[in-house]
Amino acid sequence: MIVRPMQSWFRMLFIWNGSVLQSIIPQLVLLGLLSTLAVFTHGRLFGEKIPLSPASFTLFGLTLAVFLVFRNNASYARFTEARASWGSALIASRALTSQMLSYAPADAARRDIAQELIAFAYALKHQLRGSDATADLSRLLGARRAAALSAKAYTPVYLLNDIRKKLAQALPGTEPGTTRWLVDAQINELEKCVGACERIQTTPIPFAYSVLLHRSVYAYCLFLPFGLVDSSEYLTPVLCIFISYTLIALEAIANQVADPFGLAPNALALDAITRTIERSVLELCDEAIPDELAPARAWQLT
Amino acid sequence: MIVRPMQSWFRMLFIWNGSVLQSIIPQLVLLGLLSTLAVFTHGRLFGEKIPLSPASFTLFGLTLAVFLVFRNNASYARFTEARASWGSALIASRALTSQMLSYAPADAARRDIAQELIAFAYALKHQLRGSDATADLSRLLGARRAAALSAKAYTPVYLLNDIRKKLAQALPGTEPGTTRWLVDAQINELEKCVGACERIQTTPIPFAYSVLLHRSVYAYCLFLPFGLVDSSEYLTPVLCIFISYTLIALEAIANQVADPFGLAPNALALDAITRTIERSVLELCDEAIPDELAPARAWQLT
Amino acid sequence: MIVRPMQSWFRMLFIWNGSVLQSIIPQLVLLGLLSTLAVFTHGRLFGEKIPLSPASFTLFGLTLAVFLVFRNNASYARFTEARASWGSALIASRALTSQMLSYAPADAARRDIAQELIAFAYALKHQLRGSDATADLSRLLGARRAAALSAKAYTPVYLLNDIRKKLAQALPGTEPGTTRWLVDAQINELEKCVGACERIQTTPIPFAYSVLLHRSVYAYCLFLPFGLVDSSEYLTPVLCIFISYTLIALEAIANQVADPFGLAPNALALDAITRTIERSVLELCDEAIPDELAPARAWQLT
Amino acid sequence: MIVRPMQSWFRMLFIWNGSVLQSIIPQLVLLGLLSTLAVFTHGRLFGEKIPLSPASFTLFGLTLAVFLVFRNNASYARFTEARASWGSALIASRALTSQMLSYAPADAARRDIAQELIAFAYALKHQLRGSDATADLSRLLGARRAAALSAKAYTPVYLLNDIRKKLAQALPGTEPGTTRWLVDAQINELEKCVGACERIQTTPIPFAYSVLLHRSVYAYCLFLPFGLVDSSEYLTPVLCIFISYTLIALEAIANQVADPFGLAPNALALDAITRTIERSVLELCDEAIPDELAPARAWQLT
Amino acid sequence: MIVRPMQSWFRMLFIWNGSVLQSIIPQLVLLGLLSTLAVFTHGRLFGEKIPLSPASFTLFGLTLAVFLVFRNNASYARFTEARASWGSALIASRALTSQMLSYAPADAARRDIAQELIAFAYALKHQLRGSDATADLSRLLGARRAAALSAKAYTPVYLLNDIRKKLAQALPGTEPGTTRWLVDAQINELEKCVGACERIQTTPIPFAYSVLLHRSVYAYCLFLPFGLVDSSEYLTPVLCIFISYTLIALEAIANQVADPFGLAPNALALDAITRTIERSVLELCDEAIPDELAPARAWQLT
Repeated sequence: MIVRPMQSWFRMLFIWNGSVLQSIIPQLVLLGLLSTLAVFTHGRLFGEKIPLSPASFTLFGLTLAVFLVFRNNASYARFTEARASWGSALIASRALTSQMLSYAPADAARRDIAQELIAFAYALKHQLRGSDATADLSRLLGARRAAALSAKAYTPVYLLNDIRKKLAQALPGTEPGTTRWLVDAQINELEKCVGACERIQTTPIPFAYSVLLHRSVYAYCLFLPFGLVDSSEYLTPVLCIFISYTLIALEAIANQVADPFGLAPNALALDAITRTIERSVLELCDEAIPDELAPARAWQLT
Repeated sequence: MIVRPMQSWFRMLFIWNGSVLQSIIPQLVLLGLLSTLAVFTHGRLFGEKIPLSPASFTLFGLTLAVFLVFRNNASYARFTEARASWGSALIASRALTSQMLSYAPADAARRDIAQELIAFAYALKHQLRGSDATADLSRLLGARRAAALSAKAYTPVYLLNDIRKKLAQALPGTEPGTTRWLVDAQINELEKCVGACERIQTTPIPFAYSVLLHRSVYAYCLFLPFGLVDSSEYLTPVLCIFISYTLIALEAIANQVADPFGLAPNALALDAITRTIERSVLELCDEAIPDELAPARAWQLT
Repeated sequence: MIVRPMQSWFRMLFIWNGSVLQSIIPQLVLLGLLSTLAVFTHGRLFGEKIPLSPASFTLFGLTLAVFLVFRNNASYARFTEARASWGSALIASRALTSQMLSYAPADAARRDIAQELIAFAYALKHQLRGSDATADLSRLLGARRAAALSAKAYTPVYLLNDIRKKLAQALPGTEPGTTRWLVDAQINELEKCVGACERIQTTPIPFAYSVLLHRSVYAYCLFLPFGLVDSSEYLTPVLCIFISYTLIALEAIANQVADPFGLAPNALALDAITRTIERSVLELCDEAIPDELAPARAWQLT
Repeated sequence: MIVRPMQSWFRMLFIWNGSVLQSIIPQLVLLGLLSTLAVFTHGRLFGEKIPLSPASFTLFGLTLAVFLVFRNNASYARFTEARASWGSALIASRALTSQMLSYAPADAARRDIAQELIAFAYALKHQLRGSDATADLSRLLGARRAAALSAKAYTPVYLLNDIRKKLAQALPGTEPGTTRWLVDAQINELEKCVGACERIQTTPIPFAYSVLLHRSVYAYCLFLPFGLVDSSEYLTPVLCIFISYTLIALEAIANQVADPFGLAPNALALDAITRTIERSVLELCDEAIPDELAPARAWQLT
Repeated sequence: MIVRPMQSWFRMLFIWNGSVLQSIIPQLVLLGLLSTLAVFTHGRLFGEKIPLSPASFTLFGLTLAVFLVFRNNASYARFTEARASWGSALIASRALTSQMLSYAPADAARRDIAQELIAFAYALKHQLRGSDATADLSRLLGARRAAALSAKAYTPVYLLNDIRKKLAQALPGTEPGTTRWLVDAQINELEKCVGACERIQTTPIPFAYSVLLHRSVYAYCLFLPFGLVDSSEYLTPVLCIFISYTLIALEAIANQVADPFGLAPNALALDAITRTIERSVLELCDEAIPDELAPARAWQLT
């Protein structure tokens, strides 16, 4: 995630980091060459004039706009849902910790459960990113426990089951009734968070949409120089590159935000969020808290 | 569901599997022939010039865009709702299993109820796909039980009723109060999942919308060659086929995702999801778990 | 509701039943005559040329598209919300029946409450359609009860109140606490369903939107022949009728789905849904179940 | 709220009541004069030709469409949310009454609480409309109580607090546990309704949007005659008035529905809704119920 | 937040305060100069004619419209979600106070908890605005407590934890069961409000979208004079400034509402909302209430 203070309107035009420009330069160079060729040949290919009027582009633009809007909205909905799921993981972690501190008697188990809760957040992050959770789990739960957990297919769910069992043992001594209910409801919230993230990760936007949008965008960009060359003459490469840039960049951004658990510049800052969960749970337990995560490199939180 | 790693931008242009291109080739060939004819006759039909200006298409494109956007959004909303329902079935299955393991005393019933829970997921899948559930139910509950269930009109609901009864018997020995509530709430979640899936299956998008969109798309594609031939000359077939491809393909994809429980390439991977439910419930019970489902053929999960 | 198996792309173009074409033929014939007149007079009215360029239509199309999209989305949102409300009525009926069977002791009241639950669904349907509920209520609750209920202004709500009272009497013998909660929550779900349906029925989309859209559509269609006749010549009537058809048909469909409890071909199949509720509740009680509702006439479920 | 039976397509074109036409006649007359002037001067102002091509309007129409769609959607979302809040007030009032009748023992307090519940609905209506609640509160709770309540800043909230206290006293005699929960949850629903309505009332759509849309609409309408006069000649005034009518009327409707608690023809019929709450609560208590509210004047419910 | 009574349609055209016009004047002046230059050079730059036809703008407008709609909707969704979160903070504060007054016995703790609740709202406001909470916390909780709280990273969460503990101590004397549940649920609502606000604050709309939109808007505005000068002649500066104004103003408004906790004219009036929470909680406790907040300067509530 790029966290960058708002720039002045002028400097914003020339920002390099944080735009997706870097990743689409090869395509833009190719299209620039093609449109320069079109200018020099006056829109001819192999000596033959390519008869493309701007009106054709209006027709074509129709479906392109429909695809772009749909794809972008569907991608962003995935992004916001993923972010909201992690947000509710933070909320439920705080509520569960606070409930435990207010209602549970045994002081010993409290710390233990808080550590498991933090481990849960890290385990979920690593599962979603496909990275190795052992280091974080060892730090929080000890190496033996971490090794046992690494054999599990659904580690975060297993940890939640564990938390539930421990809380069931910690609470019955006092009031088994509604307090169990309170606590169980927060664990369910965390299960929902796991389920929602897994759903986003395992079910992409139907592949056929991506193919269709991709082909429409590139066909549009390839035809563009021949449609503009008669009216825009030597300005054709500038216009083509700019229009292509907006289209291809939008597709690239939509691809990044549709996969919000990755490490792309516009994906979610899961490292920062898990750190916040850790900090917030520890602060409630009145323990020392680690620092907030600073952007890894230029304005980018991972 | 197509699960395919992201391709490079260039290879993505020539993908065959996973796009809907295969299913719409006859129509595209026909339109290609028609537009070739239009080129050779210079836009004449039976010797008579067809007077269609690009401006007419802009007028026409208006309603077409409205229909396409609406149809596609309504279809995709069905897809995402169906997926979310199955996601909450997974979440509730895990929560119910974990609650049973944490709060219920009798070890015997636990395994039994876990099997019924898995059977519920398979029964729902088979009901939605109209396929025969006997094999899966026999494997999980025994042949006699499967035979009894096959006579039911609403098998998944009947199984949930059964789970409720068994849990009511398993729990009262200890704490009848809130624990019953906890468990009942998860069964209700599963009932909601059944209801939502049945609703999506039995109530299609109003038929009149489909007819209207279909006619608009095809009328547009049929008129297109005669509108483009004057300005695009020999390029007309290329443009017509491409524009028609995007329109007809979008309609085809929208049809597939609107019926998310089918076996079309862009429908939901219910086999994989039910397998995940089975795996996750069994792992919580500390039993051996089957393998994840691998794509049946080229990148396609069913 | 039209339930029609997917047709081939070719046959779909010529479907008669289930499209709204039937209801808008008078208007289309009128517009056809007008545009034929425009062709013969070369766009003159009373000898005077009507100066309408296609550009004017683009300006006009702007607001028209805004209105069409809004109206259609608002209408469809009513349709889906109505459907979802009935879906949750089915879910809550099943859950309530299952809870009663699992937790309530007295066998006698069970059957009675199940019948009231079914009667509730029928009473709601008749209230929403403005039809007479006496026949269905007599069949389910006896003639005397039906007569008493027919005097009520809000029969479904009164029935729910009755169910609540009966369940309150049936349950306290065993566990008054959370079980009452469980059951009460399902009754609230049914109250929500009543409230949502009443809201949809009594609060239409603000009338001024309908007037504005209606006038825009018809003004657009009336001007169309004079805008197209110069460029489209003898093809004008074909184009005008087709474009008018898409616009007027969309308005007609939007009107139908905005009033989802009616008997129009694209309204909800409330008869089928109430039957499903009856079947599902009875099956849970292990009683004989009536047949599913078959489409009344050609592909139409009421 | 206009409740008018659906008219035939022809009569719908000439409806006067219920469209917003009345309120925007001055502006339309002005624009009519301006465009007539443009016709007579052939698009000249002070002898100078105003060079406006239709193409400029297409550029301009872009932002205008974006603003119109956004503004209208945001306004309608306020309208539907306000309606849904009042709908859930009705649902919760019924549920609370029914729970009280089924679970509370003391007959005396029942009537009293039902009256307070009805008074709550009236108090909320008067708060939202800025009108005086004393008459309604006196009728329901007596003059002394009404006078005491009129000094409160948040009367509906104060009444809910009162209902909560009275129910807390009415219930503990029997079962303090979950029944208190049941009843408290419905009171919370009513608090949510109050909060949602207050939110809609106190937080308008950001003012800058309204200014921007307003200026765009009027600038568009003022430029329009000079852009159309060359191609549409003497038809210019007709086209300008019609296009302006659709734009200005849409803005006017959006303004009305964005303020759903007012008395404008397209605002919510709060008088009718509060009456329905009164009727429904009284019917559940088996008391005489007042008549439904009839439209005050031509088809308009307040 | 601007709270301004609706103006007449004419005066609305010339409003200065509350529109974003002030903040974008430098850019508009620059574009005005550029377009005046274009008029004088007849669209030449360094003696060379810039070949830009209006058709190019239609192509370009396609992506621009897609970006504007998306950006604006995403921004406004943040605004409404932030407002709804604060709305539910008000609702939960009232409910919690009312529950405490109805169900808790000890009079002493009541006042104390009410003060903490009000302090919570102020602490959240100051956290979101990055301002110093000490003054408000001292006023409400005393200087010592305020100093202790100022060391916390997540003050509002810490305060909620405190409220939970105090209520847990206040309630057990009477009925520990469901009443604890009731009260805990409202505290969770407040935790959700904190979490939602933090999420909105820490996760901006992906930065790449902002860059892309910004570049598109400014490129469009810079090209505009050269595209319009041939057809609009001396009117070019007027048209350019107006079209640029709508585009740049929309971007500016979207930026303001996307950051709803700031102090910009179109941000939320958090000072007024926290004051309302204070007033409403105190009124329920039958204590003297402070005045409502008046707009700080011309029509602006902070």
